[in-house]
Amino acid sequence: MNTSSLLNTLLSQFPEQLDQSKHGLEQHSSDESWHPKQHPIAVIYPTSTQDVSGIASLCHQYNIPMSIFGAGTSVEGQSIPAPNSLCIDMSRMNSLLNLHSDDQDCQVQAGLRRLELNEKIRDQGLFFPVDPGANASIGGMCATRASGTNAVKYGTMKHNVLGLTAVTANGTIIHTGGRARKSASGYDLTSLLIGSEGTLAIITEVTLRLHGTPENTAVASVQFQNLGALTQLVFQVLQMGIPVARVELLDKPAIKAVNHYAHLQLPEDHTLFFEFHGSMQSIREQTDSVEELSKALGGSQFSWATKQEDKNRLWKARHNVLYAAKATQPNSTIWTTDVCVPISSLAQCILDIHKDIQSSGLLAPIVGHVGDGNFHLLIVIPNNDDDALQQAKDLNEKLIHRALAMGGTCTGEHGIGKGKKHWLIEEHGNAVDLMKTIKSSLDPSNLLGRGNIFSLEQP
Amino acid sequence: MNTSSLLNTLLSQFPEQLDQSKHGLEQHSSDESWHPKQHPIAVIYPTSTQDVSGIASLCHQYNIPMSIFGAGTSVEGQSIPAPNSLCIDMSRMNSLLNLHSDDQDCQVQAGLRRLELNEKIRDQGLFFPVDPGANASIGGMCATRASGTNAVKYGTMKHNVLGLTAVTANGTIIHTGGRARKSASGYDLTSLLIGSEGTLAIITEVTLRLHGTPENTAVASVQFQNLGALTQLVFQVLQMGIPVARVELLDKPAIKAVNHYAHLQLPEDHTLFFEFHGSMQSIREQTDSVEELSKALGGSQFSWATKQEDKNRLWKARHNVLYAAKATQPNSTIWTTDVCVPISSLAQCILDIHKDIQSSGLLAPIVGHVGDGNFHLLIVIPNNDDDALQQAKDLNEKLIHRALAMGGTCTGEHGIGKGKKHWLIEEHGNAVDLMKTIKSSLDPSNLLGRGNIFSLEQP
Repeated sequence: MNTSSLLNTLLSQFPEQLDQSKHGLEQHSSDESWHPKQHPIAVIYPTSTQDVSGIASLCHQYNIPMSIFGAGTSVEGQSIPAPNSLCIDMSRMNSLLNLHSDDQDCQVQAGLRRLELNEKIRDQGLFFPVDPGANASIGGMCATRASGTNAVKYGTMKHNVLGLTAVTANGTIIHTGGRARKSASGYDLTSLLIGSEGTLAIITEVTLRLHGTPENTAVASVQFQNLGALTQLVFQVLQMGIPVARVELLDKPAIKAVNHYAHLQLPEDHTLFFEFHGSMQSIREQTDSVEELSKALGGSQFSWATKQEDKNRLWKARHNVLYAAKATQPNSTIWTTDVCVPISSLAQCILDIHKDIQSSGLLAPIVGHVGDGNFHLLIVIPNNDDDALQQAKDLNEKLIHRALAMGGTCTGEHGIGKGKKHWLIEEHGNAVDLMKTIKSSLDPSNLLGRGNIFSLEQP
Repeated sequence: MNTSSLLNTLLSQFPEQLDQSKHGLEQHSSDESWHPKQHPIAVIYPTSTQDVSGIASLCHQYNIPMSIFGAGTSVEGQSIPAPNSLCIDMSRMNSLLNLHSDDQDCQVQAGLRRLELNEKIRDQGLFFPVDPGANASIGGMCATRASGTNAVKYGTMKHNVLGLTAVTANGTIIHTGGRARKSASGYDLTSLLIGSEGTLAIITEVTLRLHGTPENTAVASVQFQNLGALTQLVFQVLQMGIPVARVELLDKPAIKAVNHYAHLQLPEDHTLFFEFHGSMQSIREQTDSVEELSKALGGSQFSWATKQEDKNRLWKARHNVLYAAKATQPNSTIWTTDVCVPISSLAQCILDIHKDIQSSGLLAPIVGHVGDGNFHLLIVIPNNDDDALQQAKDLNEKLIHRALAMGGTCTGEHGIGKGKKHWLIEEHGNAVDLMKTIKSSLDPSNLLGRGNIFSLEQP
């Protein structure tokens, strides 16, 4: 009854913004993860923070949970609606609200996607570096504490968000942070909301720190037959403090998948992609050092992408690796999982999991933002193959246990979502009780992001 | 009665660690701020997280508030005990627990001070960059979200703490974060505790991110007659993305005070101190660019500190500026306050407040970490001069209003403490209600850090 009362009220207040069509519900029932679909009761498209506030007030009044949908590119089920929830789709809130090029910051609506943002600010000589691969929404990137290929140099969302506008479970609008580069003024609510996966408040506007477009960039790839030597190179580069902008691993199966999918002819061996930013002088210093280290460890000749179109093609290949993995097997689903370990344990962790993959019989390319100690498995699961699904579950568990045993984390950038709640507790112990206390204090009826991060008793 | 019961129990459980002497209480009654003294009921010196847990359990049982004392170097009254509280002095928890030089991280007890930490890790070619000037404790630096001179290149405590061990109001031990460089695993409790000024939990152990000691450093100073031109230089340096490690402002009165105090002969004009880190090649690129910009804006010749002792002397002078200001006037107190504004507003903010200082008739040197848009006033108040105290209050208020009107924050690194509660609300509005909700949920009896950040109704 509450559901129909809410929908009737929404229909009268937001007639052009409510979608109850079967097609609409289906479109909002999944993300890019392996988790099962779930339809919301309806989809609503706010265009302003005021809209979101009004919608949240009504959901609060009728006790209906709210699920937030950005671009649907989450990989741990975060965008999949909770049962009987209203899906709030942020895609119409996609404006660049203001741009301070002097201060290298801007404010955007949360539904704006990162590629569109970069398009809008390019002519100012600025860019937003956080790049999780998918063309995610900025709000979604906040909610999952996204990072990606550039994090080794520019940091993650945690380091590049200055402030937020958000709506709480009862519809209250709050502002966190500000435009100053740093502040010691009260609790860091911005950091608390970043990574909270829609469970504490609905992020509606984001103040971002931008960066000057690098003067020059250089892109290279290098191959290794030996995964241990490859990870050793990453370790040495970081130890020496060489400020690489990107250092990405694609193992042999990942390279094969990418070659096939994107019609490339990369040598089919374990590969590192590097990107260097800076003055020509500084880039030369960096690349000379990395090449020298690489040679000593038995790496192939560096292969340089000199033309812009070659650089773009290489990174496009890297970004499409999820779809490339999927294309290796028709009618398959990709279970993508990630961990992050201290750099000194990276080699061992990757070598160990490589053996686990081989003994599982599964195809599971490894790709990773190895400069942060973060890597992913893209486990290919033929549809309706319960054995393979079970094998994938086992492999995921082995990976996480290896990472935790090395002092790492059960997820470097994908988040807990629907799939890693068990390991959240294994990783953080009774600190999870504190997280739940905070959650209950801010959202006592568990209306926001229900089902993400925790399985809470319904009040 | 609760007080005497608590003290009797503590005396029996921690006979060697409890200090009830008048001298002990007096020593723990103040910090480096202008705020009035307050004696605690007693001082206790834990040596382990277990000790802290036991002490907190007892305080919880007897409903006695706890005030945390690190090195007593806070400047907004954070270390000053709440009335009738037990002071927990962390100074005996000063061990380096472990050091992973490969991963450039370490774990310390919260009472270890930053200079002692740097002493201990120097032979590994590593350093901890966050440098608020005073030889603060690492735990205190977490609690106030400290930053300082190196933040423009290396970030603040927010960016350099990987994880914490902490004790909650009822004595529960929790662990937040971990050793991985990044994580998307649950709420960012580490960031929530950093800057919480002892109000949410007692930080007992800290996992820090370290950095490689720079290959080379170069230090220079440059003078300007015109404050506007000086701040313009800072702005241009940042706009060009020149990776300066430090850029510090001392205005003319600050230079005069420092010359007098440290027997230096710096030219008495508005001055910028620069530090550059990197390869000789990279330093040359950086310094050439900065010198060129400086010359165009009418700066003096760069004066280079080439010998290590000269570099040390220069930075020591910078660090002693608080004491130098105090020495300008016998029997005076320094009211030090800080704000942080977007870089593009820095020039205007400093010029405006310079006029306010002049019309106030007070001596108030300006020093600042201007690369972050952060600067301090060191207001000299003759003891027992109520007029000067009132003038200082007015000046502080003017400064904060100017900063907030420019989109800045009421404190860049000092924290809210006892003195800026009013402006916390002016800056963050109803987001402060969220902060209070979190506070009440984690510490319902308001036992931790009572009197810092908020004035809460006693439950």
